[in-house]
Amino acid sequence: MDVFEAIKTTRAMRRLDPTKPVSDTDLWTIIEAATKAPSGGNSQPVRWLVVRDEEKRRKLGDIYRECWAPVAEMYRGRTPASDVTTTRVLNSADYLGEHMGEAPVIIVPCAKGGDPGSVYPAAQNLFLAARALGLGTTLTTVHKRKEQEVREVLGIPEDVNTFALIPVGYPTGRWKEAQRRPVEDVTYWDTWRSVAARPTEAT
Amino acid sequence: MDVFEAIKTTRAMRRLDPTKPVSDTDLWTIIEAATKAPSGGNSQPVRWLVVRDEEKRRKLGDIYRECWAPVAEMYRGRTPASDVTTTRVLNSADYLGEHMGEAPVIIVPCAKGGDPGSVYPAAQNLFLAARALGLGTTLTTVHKRKEQEVREVLGIPEDVNTFALIPVGYPTGRWKEAQRRPVEDVTYWDTWRSVAARPTEAT
Repeated sequence: MDVFEAIKTTRAMRRLDPTKPVSDTDLWTIIEAATKAPSGGNSQPVRWLVVRDEEKRRKLGDIYRECWAPVAEMYRGRTPASDVTTTRVLNSADYLGEHMGEAPVIIVPCAKGGDPGSVYPAAQNLFLAARALGLGTTLTTVHKRKEQEVREVLGIPEDVNTFALIPVGYPTGRWKEAQRRPVEDVTYWDTWRSVAARPTEAT
Repeated sequence: MDVFEAIKTTRAMRRLDPTKPVSDTDLWTIIEAATKAPSGGNSQPVRWLVVRDEEKRRKLGDIYRECWAPVAEMYRGRTPASDVTTTRVLNSADYLGEHMGEAPVIIVPCAKGGDPGSVYPAAQNLFLAARALGLGTTLTTVHKRKEQEVREVLGIPEDVNTFALIPVGYPTGRWKEAQRRPVEDVTYWDTWRSVAARPTEAT
C-alpha cells in the first residue's frame, strides 16, 4: 500500500470483530514497523506488551470501561446535540468503552521515563502498518486514570509507564478517510497566526 | 512509495543541503499528511508553524546550538569511545547543532495544552510523507530548554507549547534503514518481560 494512502485512511477503528483472530506474523510485522521510529538519543525505550490472554484482556476491558465513563460524560456535556459528527465519534467511543476487552489483541506500549516523543511516533508507525494489513487500531490513553491497576494485571513494575491501550483486530466498519480540518486552517507561515491559501495545483 | 519501505527508511537526516529549496507544494503535502493523525477526542490541537524566513531560522539555529551543547556533553560523558555507533550519531547530531539554522525550512508543531499523544503521531506522519518525497527531517526537542526564546522569535503566545524543531530539506547523505534493536528484544507477550522468539517465515 502506498504510504500516502495508508496515512489518509488510517483512522480510529473502534468496532473490531472479536471472533477473527490476529496472526502472530502480523503482530511481529506491525511491532517491527513501530521499532523503526525515532527516539531521543536513539534510546529506543519502548517495550511492546502484547496481550492476547483472554482473562487479562477482560480485566483491561473492565479498567478501560471505568476510565472511559467519566471522560464520555465530560465530552457529552460540552457537545451540542446539533454536532452530529462529534456525537457519532462519541457513540463509537462508547462502543469501545464497552468492548475494549473483546478486542482480539490489546497492545500496551511501555517505557521507563516519560518521554512521549520517544513513544507516540512509534505508535503511529504501528497504526499505519496495521492499516496496510487490514487491521484496525485506536490510540487510547484514558487508562492512565487507573494506570496502577493496568500495571498489576500485566506485572509491569512501578517505574515503567504505560502510554496507551491499543486494541487490534479486523474492523467491522469500512476504511475511509478520517475527518480532519483543512490543512490551510492549521498551518502558519513564519509567524504565529500568519495564514496563507493553499495554491490550487497547476492543471 | 510503499508504506513499509517508507517506515523502514525514515531516519533522522541531520545533514541537509542549505542551497536546495523545498517547494511550497511539498510543504503543504507533508503537513496535510500530518493532519490525518489521531488526536485526543479528535481535538486536532496542532498548529504547524513553517519557518522559511532566513533571519528567523538563524535565530532558531542560535537557540538550538545553545540547547544542544549541554545535551551533547551529557551524552558524550556516558558514551565509551568503543561505542562507534553512538559516537557516529553524536557527530551527526553535533553537525545539526551547528547547522539547524541553515535548514531550508524549520517546522515547529505547536499546541495549547500539553497532550503529546495528540502531537507526535502527526509528526511521524510528516516524517514519512517527507521521506516519500525525498525530504529529510529530524525530530528534535532540546529547544524546550529555551522554549520562551523560541516563542519570542515566532510570536507564539505563552499558553501555546512547542513540541519540536523539525529541520526539513534535501539530505546530503543516503537513505538507508535506521539501526534499531531486533523486535524480539522489545516485545513482551501477556506479561512484563515474557519474551518469545520470532518464528522464521515458512518457506
